[in-house]
Amino acid sequence: MPNEFDLIDHIVATLGDVAAGAGVALGPGDDAAVLTLPPGCQLVVSTDTLVAGRHYPEGAAPDAIGYRALAVATSDLAAMGAAAAWAVVSLTAERLERAWTAGFAEGLKRAAARFGLAVVGGNLARGPQSVTVTVHGHLPHGAAITRAGAKTGDAVYVTGELGAAKLALGDVERLRELSFADLDDGEPPARYWRPTPRLAVGVGLRGVASAALDISDGLASDLDHLCQASGVRCEVEVSKLPVAAGCDPLMAASGGDDYELVFTAPPARAEAVRRLANDTDGPITAIGTVRPATNGCRRTAWFQDGKAVRPAPGYRHF
Amino acid sequence: MPNEFDLIDHIVATLGDVAAGAGVALGPGDDAAVLTLPPGCQLVVSTDTLVAGRHYPEGAAPDAIGYRALAVATSDLAAMGAAAAWAVVSLTAERLERAWTAGFAEGLKRAAARFGLAVVGGNLARGPQSVTVTVHGHLPHGAAITRAGAKTGDAVYVTGELGAAKLALGDVERLRELSFADLDDGEPPARYWRPTPRLAVGVGLRGVASAALDISDGLASDLDHLCQASGVRCEVEVSKLPVAAGCDPLMAASGGDDYELVFTAPPARAEAVRRLANDTDGPITAIGTVRPATNGCRRTAWFQDGKAVRPAPGYRHF
Repeated sequence: MPNEFDLIDHIVATLGDVAAGAGVALGPGDDAAVLTLPPGCQLVVSTDTLVAGRHYPEGAAPDAIGYRALAVATSDLAAMGAAAAWAVVSLTAERLERAWTAGFAEGLKRAAARFGLAVVGGNLARGPQSVTVTVHGHLPHGAAITRAGAKTGDAVYVTGELGAAKLALGDVERLRELSFADLDDGEPPARYWRPTPRLAVGVGLRGVASAALDISDGLASDLDHLCQASGVRCEVEVSKLPVAAGCDPLMAASGGDDYELVFTAPPARAEAVRRLANDTDGPITAIGTVRPATNGCRRTAWFQDGKAVRPAPGYRHF
Repeated sequence: MPNEFDLIDHIVATLGDVAAGAGVALGPGDDAAVLTLPPGCQLVVSTDTLVAGRHYPEGAAPDAIGYRALAVATSDLAAMGAAAAWAVVSLTAERLERAWTAGFAEGLKRAAARFGLAVVGGNLARGPQSVTVTVHGHLPHGAAITRAGAKTGDAVYVTGELGAAKLALGDVERLRELSFADLDDGEPPARYWRPTPRLAVGVGLRGVASAALDISDGLASDLDHLCQASGVRCEVEVSKLPVAAGCDPLMAASGGDDYELVFTAPPARAEAVRRLANDTDGPITAIGTVRPATNGCRRTAWFQDGKAVRPAPGYRHF
C-alpha cells in the first residue's frame, strides 16, 4: 500500500489546475493554505460530512463520491449568496489505493472546475470511509442572505425541480454500481451524484431575497428552519411544486438530496426574481406565501387543492 | 435519542461565548458562518481529522477528545505564524447523547477560550466516531512562514519538550479512562490530551524564522518534510533535544503528538529567537544546523555524540 505522503502527492497532481486559482497564495502541501480575500468582502464558511453507507451507497464510484461531496458543501455557499472560492477536503478510508484516490480526486477536480473552486488543502486518514468538505466563499460586506429575514407577505420560491434524488435513491444498487462516466445528465442518478449548487442564483439573490437556505434534508424539513429563524409561518401549495418527472409532489416535498434553494422575496422583487430565472439556468417557481406565526407556530402549512396535507418528515441523521 | 437539531442547539448553548468573537458576523445556525478578516490580512486555513481508535483511544472522555481535536488543528496555524480566529467542527458518531455531546462541546469551549478561537459552525452526522476540525487564522499579507525557506547555515530549533505524548501512549488504558478534570498539568497524559499550540511563538517568528512546521508525526518524520520543501539537509544532534523527563532522546525524536514547532532561522536572528523564548512560555532549543543537500539527499542526518544514528520512523497513517 502506498504511504500517506505519496498518496497526497498523487492526489494533488491529479487535481492539477484546481489546486490553484484566484486568491490562492499557498495551496496544498504546507501546514495550511494561505488565501487572499477580494477587498471589501466577507468570508463565508461551511462544513459538511458524508458518511459511506449513510449519506451515499457504500462501494460507490470514487469520482462520484468526490464530486458529490464537493457539490453538497458548495450548495451552502449558494444559499448565503456567496461566490465560491476555496475548499479543503478530508478523506478517511480503511484501504486507500492510488487508483481509488485518483478517482476521488478526479471527481473533486470536475466539480471544482465546474463551480469555480480551488481545492487548497486536506487531510488523509485511515478509518471508516467518510468525506468532510469545508468550503469558503465570499460576498460584499453585509450582503449575506440568512434564514432569518422572511416577512409576512413575501412569496416563497424554489429553484429547479424537486424529487429526482429521491427517485434515484429508490434504486441504491444502481447508484452504487453506475460508473461516473455513464451518468446521463438530467436522469435521477446523475441528479443524485452531481447536484448543481445554485451559485449564480444565490449571487443574484443578494438584495432580492429576504431569506434563503438550501434543501438538503427535504423541502418540508428545511422550510421549517426558515420559518423558525424568521419567526413566521409559510403556506405552500403542493400542486405548485416543480417536480421531477415520475415523482409524486408530496414525495418531492419530503425528499432531500436535491440541493436546490428555497427562498423568500417581497412582492416588489417579483420582477427581479423573474429576470434572475431568465439570466441563470432557472427555473424558479413561486410555491407559496409567508404568513404571520399564529399561536407561536413557526412551521409550514401545506395545502393540496385547498385541503391541508402533510408531507412525510425529511431526512434525519439520528 | 434526541434529534439532530436539538443536539446542535444544545452544543451551541454549551459553547456559549466561544460561538461568537472578533470578526464573527454570523455564527452557528445558518447555512454558513460569515466572518470579517482584519484589514490587510490573509486567511490561513487547515483541516485535520482524528479517528477514534486510531488517533485517540476509543471510549475516551468526550471533553478530552473535543479539546485535543481543536488543539491539534490549531497547531497548524501556529506553524504558519498565523493568529488563530475561527473553527468549524464536524463530529461523526454512532450514538450521540446529550451528555456526551455536551462534554465534547465543553472540551471545545475550553480549548477555544484558551487559544482565542471562536467555534462558528459545524456538522453532526451518524457514523463511526471521528472529528474533523477546520481552523482559520490570519496574518499580515505575505507574512506566512512556510516549510520551504530554510537556507544553508540556518540553525534548527524546537519549542518545548518532546516525548511526553509518546510516554502517555505507553498506557492507552489510562488515557482512555482518565477524566479530563483529573489531568495534571505537565504530566504525560495532560500533554497528550491538551497539547499547546505554540501560537505566540508562531506570531513572533514572522520575519524571524526561515521555515517552520509543527511536529505531529514525530520530529524525525516532520523535519524531513522541511528538508524536502526547502531543498536542504539538516544535521541534528540528538543529545541537544529537549526531552520530557523519563523519555529516551531517540524515542523523543520519533514520537509524535506533541505539537511543538520545529523551525529554522539564520544566525543573525539568534538573538531574536532568544528574546522570543523569554517573551513566550519557552523554552526554545537549538538542536542542529541546515546544510546543503548532497547527492540530492534532502533529509535529516542524526548524530549522537558525533556518531550517526537513526530514530525510528514517525507515525504513519497507512
